[in-house]
Amino acid sequence: MSDFNSGFSSGFKLGLVGVGKIVRDQHLPAIAATPNCHLVATADPHASLPELPAYQNLEAMLDAHPEITAVSICTPTHLRYSQARAALMRGKHVLLEKPPGATLSEVEDLIACAKEQGVSLFAAWHSRFAPGVAQAQQWLAERQMQRVEIEWKEDVRVWHPGQAWIWQPGGMGVFDPGINALSIATAILPQPFFLQQARLLVPSNAQTPIAADLTFTDPQGASIEAAFDFRQSGPPTWDMHIHSDGSRLSLTQGGCRLVIDDELIIEEEEREYQGLYARFAELIANKRSEVDVAPLRQVADAFLYGHREPTEAFIE
Amino acid sequence: MSDFNSGFSSGFKLGLVGVGKIVRDQHLPAIAATPNCHLVATADPHASLPELPAYQNLEAMLDAHPEITAVSICTPTHLRYSQARAALMRGKHVLLEKPPGATLSEVEDLIACAKEQGVSLFAAWHSRFAPGVAQAQQWLAERQMQRVEIEWKEDVRVWHPGQAWIWQPGGMGVFDPGINALSIATAILPQPFFLQQARLLVPSNAQTPIAADLTFTDPQGASIEAAFDFRQSGPPTWDMHIHSDGSRLSLTQGGCRLVIDDELIIEEEEREYQGLYARFAELIANKRSEVDVAPLRQVADAFLYGHREPTEAFIE
Repeated sequence: MSDFNSGFSSGFKLGLVGVGKIVRDQHLPAIAATPNCHLVATADPHASLPELPAYQNLEAMLDAHPEITAVSICTPTHLRYSQARAALMRGKHVLLEKPPGATLSEVEDLIACAKEQGVSLFAAWHSRFAPGVAQAQQWLAERQMQRVEIEWKEDVRVWHPGQAWIWQPGGMGVFDPGINALSIATAILPQPFFLQQARLLVPSNAQTPIAADLTFTDPQGASIEAAFDFRQSGPPTWDMHIHSDGSRLSLTQGGCRLVIDDELIIEEEEREYQGLYARFAELIANKRSEVDVAPLRQVADAFLYGHREPTEAFIE
Repeated sequence: MSDFNSGFSSGFKLGLVGVGKIVRDQHLPAIAATPNCHLVATADPHASLPELPAYQNLEAMLDAHPEITAVSICTPTHLRYSQARAALMRGKHVLLEKPPGATLSEVEDLIACAKEQGVSLFAAWHSRFAPGVAQAQQWLAERQMQRVEIEWKEDVRVWHPGQAWIWQPGGMGVFDPGINALSIATAILPQPFFLQQARLLVPSNAQTPIAADLTFTDPQGASIEAAFDFRQSGPPTWDMHIHSDGSRLSLTQGGCRLVIDDELIIEEEEREYQGLYARFAELIANKRSEVDVAPLRQVADAFLYGHREPTEAFIE
């Protein structure tokens, strides 16, 4: 797959599809910090960015800017498939915000489409770029682990104000942050793991859970427990603790802090999206795709196999 | 993957894990009709077959009969993963009744495990062996299709008497028969398709739907509608109609009857499990696996992305 054109790919011109909170908070500063990525234009029927050409939709943007070689798709989940497919069919590289689709089946089609078109498709799991993740993965790769405890709890009113879509089908409820934990766990745990039991608490006026207790295991019989909760008050808890052969690894603060056997290994500011755009640039340069559906598959499994229990209505 | 040992594999000795209704109704007659398959023993803590060595569990059966080279796993879904893995790890070929697992993630692990062990894993979708399926697939392969209507309706009291597990997580409710329709559709439709919208009717005393209306599309924008219903009275409806370039293909009676443009092409008795065991024998002889998760992925997508509506309690 390597070739001699990598000089060509050392810079790429980007279009942004969807201009919402995550774009302003995360994508823009990360793009600005990525030297070989040049933001050209945006496509959004309702929003735009100062001093940047703005279009109503992807097609209009690509028509006006044939120099765009890559797009980041940051629209609501249910819109992503058709936008991503249209971009791929026009030979553009595509970065998909997490989760990569509303369903697993549509993501399979995008994978096939990117392969056919010979362009890069990147299903971005931003939490995998948290400062402590790579070292945690390395430490675990050589070990047998016995027990994992994941706690992913935040106040939905603080972290998702007014986001009514989160309670609708496809919004995934507490799995919207929970999938970040699952994206880390599927990256760092040395064995694949799978659900044994799940309890999903669903508000009487919602389609998606406000809290979930999950029990997984792996081929070696490890015990992996996860508690996701949107009803946390005060600061969030985004922690996982992994017990392995008498040692204990703690990856906390969403992956910003790594402690192994009481020794502080890493404590850094979050700058996940910079890592994410660096990876996208690298994938484009190497003509590769990276689409790991494992985190979304875990969520689908929880919806398929979980026991739903009604709980009180959620009033924001 | 071919080798010169195929003479070796011309016959195989089989153990059955789980001796329930589906085994008595379907597996036994099909095994008897498969000349190169020799049934050796069964493993089930609660049931056995006349004149056949019976064991409490898989391990005891394999310990007592090292000559067994393949097992069929027909236990309740949530038990299959660990039994299948144990059999694969002992170098046995494995046939999994549908669905191949309680979750998609555990099936992924079995695929990896079979590959590592160099044995055949067969996720059996019996409806794909219905008489009209192969010809429907062939007819569609050369065509663009515009519209598909799937109706899969049966009386749960007649077809699943006393099967309380069907209403529990993992039992899948009306998707237990519905996955048969999806296994045919994913095999014969020329393009992958994916869910756009789903409405799941869930009895107030159940975890799984009693009826579902599903709208799918494919990369070409075809309209694919499926109606699954357990509340049918009278004979079942297991039909699909496919409209393609002015022609109409009807695959009805669960795939036993194929009509194209009002011409009767096939009308045969159902003997799906014979085809299924013939395929298993072929996979073993050719040292291949066949695990298509697409039907289960479609069900997981419907649970992930479907809109659940409560309906009246189900009293058998």
